[in-house]
Amino acid sequence: MLKKTIRFPAAALLCLFLLTAGCSTFSTGPGGEASADERQLTEVKVKQVMLDPESGVPVVLLQDLEESVTLPIWIGSNEAVAIAAPLERMSFQRPMTHDLLDIILKEIRVTVVKVVVTDLRQETFFADLYLKRGRKRYQVDCRPSDAIALAVRTGAPIFVSTEMLLKAGIKKGVKPS
Amino acid sequence: MLKKTIRFPAAALLCLFLLTAGCSTFSTGPGGEASADERQLTEVKVKQVMLDPESGVPVVLLQDLEESVTLPIWIGSNEAVAIAAPLERMSFQRPMTHDLLDIILKEIRVTVVKVVVTDLRQETFFADLYLKRGRKRYQVDCRPSDAIALAVRTGAPIFVSTEMLLKAGIKKGVKPS
Repeated sequence: MLKKTIRFPAAALLCLFLLTAGCSTFSTGPGGEASADERQLTEVKVKQVMLDPESGVPVVLLQDLEESVTLPIWIGSNEAVAIAAPLERMSFQRPMTHDLLDIILKEIRVTVVKVVVTDLRQETFFADLYLKRGRKRYQVDCRPSDAIALAVRTGAPIFVSTEMLLKAGIKKGVKPS
Repeated sequence: MLKKTIRFPAAALLCLFLLTAGCSTFSTGPGGEASADERQLTEVKVKQVMLDPESGVPVVLLQDLEESVTLPIWIGSNEAVAIAAPLERMSFQRPMTHDLLDIILKEIRVTVVKVVVTDLRQETFFADLYLKRGRKRYQVDCRPSDAIALAVRTGAPIFVSTEMLLKAGIKKGVKPS
């Protein structure tokens, strides 16, 4: 794997610049059949991290595996870099915060089972992180950007609430209002 | 404890604005005698998080408990907010990345024993995070900003290499060159 080691914050700026040109489609995990408790969930992949051309705010686009619906989630610029860097196979001289989280979880043998974007309330997206250590399982409330940044580092699959995806997502061939 | 719930990124901007006015001195832990493996370490507290008046870059000032030497460490703006927010008793609507790290560690019963700023090489500071889970201990390489952001959330003591503190620190009454 080719790694580019670059300095921060030059890296962040470069990365965001690259993002404006658009990234390819990235799959974060092996995917597979949804289990019983995921019946109302849809697995998605990170389609793109880009700057919203109107507002200039970074946005991560999640897309279902059939590529029929895209869910845009507006995020912070640090989180945009945190999601894009591993997808672009960029590494920094020093571990960034999400790298540290990933390193700590691996060190204490905690697996990221999946991340789920659960809800959208008052323009705020909510997510849950599903962790496992031995037989013990943990569910932690978090921001989708943190959950996705961890998913792209660990290969954990990303799910979104199907109901929310259909409400807030943009269907293929339909121009967003 | 009085908590102020504010939105991001307005919170970040407000916080950085407040920082320019200067914060008080904060102690991050109970402190105490250095143990055997800390003989060449000096315990410090977070004296202030502020914007460097010359460069406009955020800086965290660490100071020894006798308040005789201050070590400035330049950090990212997100990390500055991450360190200042708990000290200012500000909370956000949603957990920020360091809050998530703190929540996960508590959930899986991992204690932050201490953080140590170990070295300064080629203008880059290095730190180690000392964690404990039951009898098992872990040592993780990280950026000082992440380590300090975690220390101010957990109350873990912060140490710096005494040699480095004397080299890179600013002694009381001595104007920095």
